[in-house]
Amino acid sequence: MTEESPPLQSTGLVTSQVARFDTPLPLACGRELPAFELVYETYGELNADRSNAVLICHALTGHHHAAGYHHVDDRKPGWWDAHIGPGKSIDTRRFFVISVNNLGGCHGSTGPQSIDPNSGRIWGPDFPLMTVEDWVHSQAMLADRLGIERFAAVVGGSLGGMQALQWSITFPARLANAAVIAATPKLSAQNIAFNEVARQAIRSDPEFHDGWYAEHQALPRQGLRLARMVGHITYLSEHAMGARFGRDLRTDRLNFGYDVEFEVESYLRYQGDSFSRRFDANTYLLMTKALDYFDPAGDSDDDLARALSPAQCRFLVVSFSTDWRFAPARSREMVDALLRAGKGVSYANIDSSHGHDAFLLPNERYAAVLGGFMQRIANDIETIDANRPSGDGAHHGETSRQRMPNDQRESG
Amino acid sequence: MTEESPPLQSTGLVTSQVARFDTPLPLACGRELPAFELVYETYGELNADRSNAVLICHALTGHHHAAGYHHVDDRKPGWWDAHIGPGKSIDTRRFFVISVNNLGGCHGSTGPQSIDPNSGRIWGPDFPLMTVEDWVHSQAMLADRLGIERFAAVVGGSLGGMQALQWSITFPARLANAAVIAATPKLSAQNIAFNEVARQAIRSDPEFHDGWYAEHQALPRQGLRLARMVGHITYLSEHAMGARFGRDLRTDRLNFGYDVEFEVESYLRYQGDSFSRRFDANTYLLMTKALDYFDPAGDSDDDLARALSPAQCRFLVVSFSTDWRFAPARSREMVDALLRAGKGVSYANIDSSHGHDAFLLPNERYAAVLGGFMQRIANDIETIDANRPSGDGAHHGETSRQRMPNDQRESG
Repeated sequence: MTEESPPLQSTGLVTSQVARFDTPLPLACGRELPAFELVYETYGELNADRSNAVLICHALTGHHHAAGYHHVDDRKPGWWDAHIGPGKSIDTRRFFVISVNNLGGCHGSTGPQSIDPNSGRIWGPDFPLMTVEDWVHSQAMLADRLGIERFAAVVGGSLGGMQALQWSITFPARLANAAVIAATPKLSAQNIAFNEVARQAIRSDPEFHDGWYAEHQALPRQGLRLARMVGHITYLSEHAMGARFGRDLRTDRLNFGYDVEFEVESYLRYQGDSFSRRFDANTYLLMTKALDYFDPAGDSDDDLARALSPAQCRFLVVSFSTDWRFAPARSREMVDALLRAGKGVSYANIDSSHGHDAFLLPNERYAAVLGGFMQRIANDIETIDANRPSGDGAHHGETSRQRMPNDQRESG
Repeated sequence: MTEESPPLQSTGLVTSQVARFDTPLPLACGRELPAFELVYETYGELNADRSNAVLICHALTGHHHAAGYHHVDDRKPGWWDAHIGPGKSIDTRRFFVISVNNLGGCHGSTGPQSIDPNSGRIWGPDFPLMTVEDWVHSQAMLADRLGIERFAAVVGGSLGGMQALQWSITFPARLANAAVIAATPKLSAQNIAFNEVARQAIRSDPEFHDGWYAEHQALPRQGLRLARMVGHITYLSEHAMGARFGRDLRTDRLNFGYDVEFEVESYLRYQGDSFSRRFDANTYLLMTKALDYFDPAGDSDDDLARALSPAQCRFLVVSFSTDWRFAPARSREMVDALLRAGKGVSYANIDSSHGHDAFLLPNERYAAVLGGFMQRIANDIETIDANRPSGDGAHHGETSRQRMPNDQRESG
């Protein structure tokens, strides 16, 4: 793109911001972060009564740069630019969108690469393990800082969807809607097993040095590369992989050796190499653990409906037909539990050949479903704004209830 | 077991044998093996006209020790003892069963750990890559050596099933039946992708030394361990993993660190460790390549029916309902192609929760299906034997045709 012509429907050039917190954050692991920073971006404008804020939560290897461009010469926009921008599903002409890099990340928020104030050296592997609930707490502190008492919606895919679900339980009064996309109420044994292979790949790399690779001027590239390769297989559907690569050879004929022969080998190696150059190993380990630990029903005798009973928001649950990482059945578990708990939930299973990755990609029905859900939220907000005498911005609780009639709460 | 009481229905104590071949074996890769040895075992007795021989082909990490015990104090029998033995599906009271370790293996047949006669040092990574067709050729040489002109059946699961299928194409006159179990007519892109991750894990282990680990007194244990872990996930069904481990913790509570927390982590690590101590890395690499290369329809414009048209045997194809490595749909591709080619094929999809591993495990219906198929073969042989004047053992071709009436060839 050039400065003169930002792409159509792009939120344009965006700048990341940093919020510093000197209040200690108690963590699920029993430790606390004495102080921390969160890096975030915002798109769109906060309205007068601060009722149009939407929080975007990112997935395993995501970050705060969800939409727009950082530089005029960026070739790629943020990771969810397909769905965030003017006129898009999450319409930045109507919403004030906040996208934050999670604690423990490697894109600017406090994480293993940050300095531990107690030791004066980087945290490295001493950085405390995080849970989805910890992230939600830190995100709420950011909301406080930005003066947002209640989000119009918290939205996320995959691990981001788990954060949206957790928000509804931890801070029921602080969000009007939650969109839980391509997620699961807890990982299966197979999900944990894939994460464990990735962790073992990283931790058994001799360059890992028990996580102190930075102090050894080393990088566990091979481990990260393998972790990404195995992860990538689970992000794509078998069908998508077959359609894209099949058994196509990269070379004219088999070379009967271990250089690349099949296209799919070349693709995986490329993905692995590229990832290993841009992602921090300690962060990857920590993020997979947060996935494994997520289990909101765990404290409710595995009764997800009971765990979700505090929720006050409306829900949108979206799954993708060929997602085998977090299959549609896992989304239906959440829908069933929400219905049993008497919550308002809409559910769509989107036909897509792209497997788990579908949640990141453009798709007409997906855009219509997510866009429709968000549009209704925006319409409600704007109707209330239009009907309110100017200056009356204090009764969020009241207005929220008005925009969630019971008949919609029960909608399936 | 004790010497006094071998387990019921066991083929008892068995001894491996070695056949040496000094005839060069031309290989698909364009090279040739100047000489080679095959280690094998036999169970049961060859009948007078040598018509009751059954060849067992092994899978990725299998070997020739398929049934019985090597030592009186062995705790475990051969890998397919559930199905081979007196009174079992492959009844050693009626069949002469031959089980061979494939070339390139690490259990006694010539492979990467053998001495290359040209260099005088071990082959290591210089050992030529093998294909399923190469194995079939070497197995035919063993059959010649044992005086077996025609097998009553060639039987195998997974990669072993591919060998059975290849036998029907390469040597159509040399087998009366083929049992192709839990196999596929070719690997999918996803199958190849998993193999590639395993290979990269091994090859990126610093202890691999480009395959010359033995010369460096090293072993790429971490690589093998990771390869086995990722393989193991694909051998089990998601359901089986969930039923066996779920999210059960190994410890009282989460330890918020990277020691084992979930049972499934402990299981995978154990499987990986154990495998890395007993299997050769170069063999593992080579076996995964043979899997990737298998594609009998490749030379027939991807028309599997055309590729199978030379086959003269009856087929049994068996798949398992929760096998996602080589799913039932892959078996049905073979059944469809066989039917289109006008071959006699019986097909059973066995309900099992055990995923791909089901082909190794006891299962009532599986035993009935495989046992019934084998029983009919045995009955045919014995009827012919009973009706034949003594000494008439020379007309195998003739007798074979008699025991395969056309109405059975067309049976679905």
